[in-house]
Amino acid sequence: MPLSKFQSLITRRGWLAAVALSAVLGACAPMATAPGADPLPSWNEGVNKQRIVEFVRAVSTEGGKDFVPAAERIAVFDNDGTLWLEYPLYTQVRFVFDRVRELAPQHPEWKDKEPYKSVIAGDIKGAMASGSQGLFELVLAAQSGTTPAEFEATVRQWIQASKDPRFKRPYTELSYQPMQELLRYLRANGFKTYIVSGGTVDFMRAFAEPVYGIPSEQVIGTRQKFVFELKDGQPLVKMLPALEFNDDKEGKPIAIAQIIGKRPIAAFGNSDGDFQMLQWTTAGAGRRLGMIVHHDDAVREYAYDRDSSIGKLADGLDQYQARGWGLISMKNDWKLIFAPAK
Amino acid sequence: MPLSKFQSLITRRGWLAAVALSAVLGACAPMATAPGADPLPSWNEGVNKQRIVEFVRAVSTEGGKDFVPAAERIAVFDNDGTLWLEYPLYTQVRFVFDRVRELAPQHPEWKDKEPYKSVIAGDIKGAMASGSQGLFELVLAAQSGTTPAEFEATVRQWIQASKDPRFKRPYTELSYQPMQELLRYLRANGFKTYIVSGGTVDFMRAFAEPVYGIPSEQVIGTRQKFVFELKDGQPLVKMLPALEFNDDKEGKPIAIAQIIGKRPIAAFGNSDGDFQMLQWTTAGAGRRLGMIVHHDDAVREYAYDRDSSIGKLADGLDQYQARGWGLISMKNDWKLIFAPAK
Repeated sequence: MPLSKFQSLITRRGWLAAVALSAVLGACAPMATAPGADPLPSWNEGVNKQRIVEFVRAVSTEGGKDFVPAAERIAVFDNDGTLWLEYPLYTQVRFVFDRVRELAPQHPEWKDKEPYKSVIAGDIKGAMASGSQGLFELVLAAQSGTTPAEFEATVRQWIQASKDPRFKRPYTELSYQPMQELLRYLRANGFKTYIVSGGTVDFMRAFAEPVYGIPSEQVIGTRQKFVFELKDGQPLVKMLPALEFNDDKEGKPIAIAQIIGKRPIAAFGNSDGDFQMLQWTTAGAGRRLGMIVHHDDAVREYAYDRDSSIGKLADGLDQYQARGWGLISMKNDWKLIFAPAK
Repeated sequence: MPLSKFQSLITRRGWLAAVALSAVLGACAPMATAPGADPLPSWNEGVNKQRIVEFVRAVSTEGGKDFVPAAERIAVFDNDGTLWLEYPLYTQVRFVFDRVRELAPQHPEWKDKEPYKSVIAGDIKGAMASGSQGLFELVLAAQSGTTPAEFEATVRQWIQASKDPRFKRPYTELSYQPMQELLRYLRANGFKTYIVSGGTVDFMRAFAEPVYGIPSEQVIGTRQKFVFELKDGQPLVKMLPALEFNDDKEGKPIAIAQIIGKRPIAAFGNSDGDFQMLQWTTAGAGRRLGMIVHHDDAVREYAYDRDSSIGKLADGLDQYQARGWGLISMKNDWKLIFAPAK
């Protein structure tokens, strides 16, 4: 995504124009599909690529024994660490830390109170020591009091002004190119692609369409409570500093059942937070696909799994074979990690 | 919907086949659109039909000042009383009463306990006297302990075996033909049509696709809590007898903001439970459409509004003009209410 080209387009409609453009480019470029052309050019040949291609062919071939009607071709993707970079700090956490620092002058009470104090001091380690409870507190403090539309505009402004410290590129350019190809390949074969992530839904909606071609209604995530209010006679929906639903672990299949109302036939994740989603998806009748992105490429990205506090993958490593899931090696399966900078 | 023809198709896949067929029939029959053909043949000419047609033309004409990109053409519809019959008893309540009677032998404790006692005795008035609290209790008792898929199958079996006592037709044939045409007309013009109803979402998903051509992921409703469990090693999502979210009044704009993540540009309702949804939809920037179906046809359907306990419409009647909403007269605007029996 050459997001930098669209610096001036920070309204949603502007972004949608950008999306439309990128969708056209996206559709034309890697899909410039002469019949028989490779739909996954950034994937090395091997069992994992083969598994994907055979699955897609099986479920979309009418008359075949594994055929699935298009309306039921639902594929779900975790976001952080599955579709884009999550290490060593989730992008949303980076946003929240910046936002807390920005809002600090209006909250003198934060100065002496953890985890705010560490965030304001730029002490990431100290802030992370507050654990997931502390992190939720920061997220809710940083993401409430406005309408979702106003909040999305704030996220877009931040994301356009920010770069990853190691790769020196905007976060929106740090999605995984092989997964981008996979999203497009699935959609070209009648799939509806969903994000199902532990990140909060309004944060992801600020970039899901331009970055992944996934519209807001196909983004499922952790939800804050909202309230309906009249302000000077104008009705508005406002984000509250209260957690409504944690879309992680068991939360993922639950949210899918509640919001999509169908069991997916394909699921992609990278951490044990995705375990139940893969488990539920692949336990359904008929042909199913479950795959885990394994971060084993310390040179081009990062190598982490069992002992990591970000993206911990232990149950998945122990059980993927017995469960018939694929383990994607970023090092061996992917020709490149990110699209080259333009 | 000639649902009776599909009596044997009670699995979801079977229903989807029925859907596909009915969608084809639906697309061919009333849309057999010679250019210039009337897309709303069951609507009488008049301000309301004109309002709809002009709105659709305005937002879908590229280059026009009111143009809205297709991705933002979201239309939301209440279900009971807006898309199908709700009077004198919501169809879901009829289902719940039947289900409670069916489950009663397994629940001897219900025999002496209201509102169960009245339901078991067939005393509808007595059961309704328990109010919305009692009704929720019955809904939760009748709709828990199974997976959503099992529950949907139960609803489909019931709905295929049941008829409305006055019209002597299956409930699935008692959707409003003019609204069916409106749904198809909007979709033919790039709209995504959603149901946003106070009914519980899993109940509606059992018939929304075959009856309205609306897939499960475009059905928003009142939600029960779900739990994720392993049963004999098999992962499953189960419906709990606990309310998670009441999708009525303020709940409607909140659920739309949380699940769709976009403000609709058109909203259709019939009772004051839809007021906030219409209010929020039509307060957005750009061209908007808000319309209320007014039940004023005692001969062909029913006449009820201000004083009704089902589908009470008072605020809407008082304010629709000031707010620029349309008030659809079933009596005057609609040539027919239901599609003729086949």
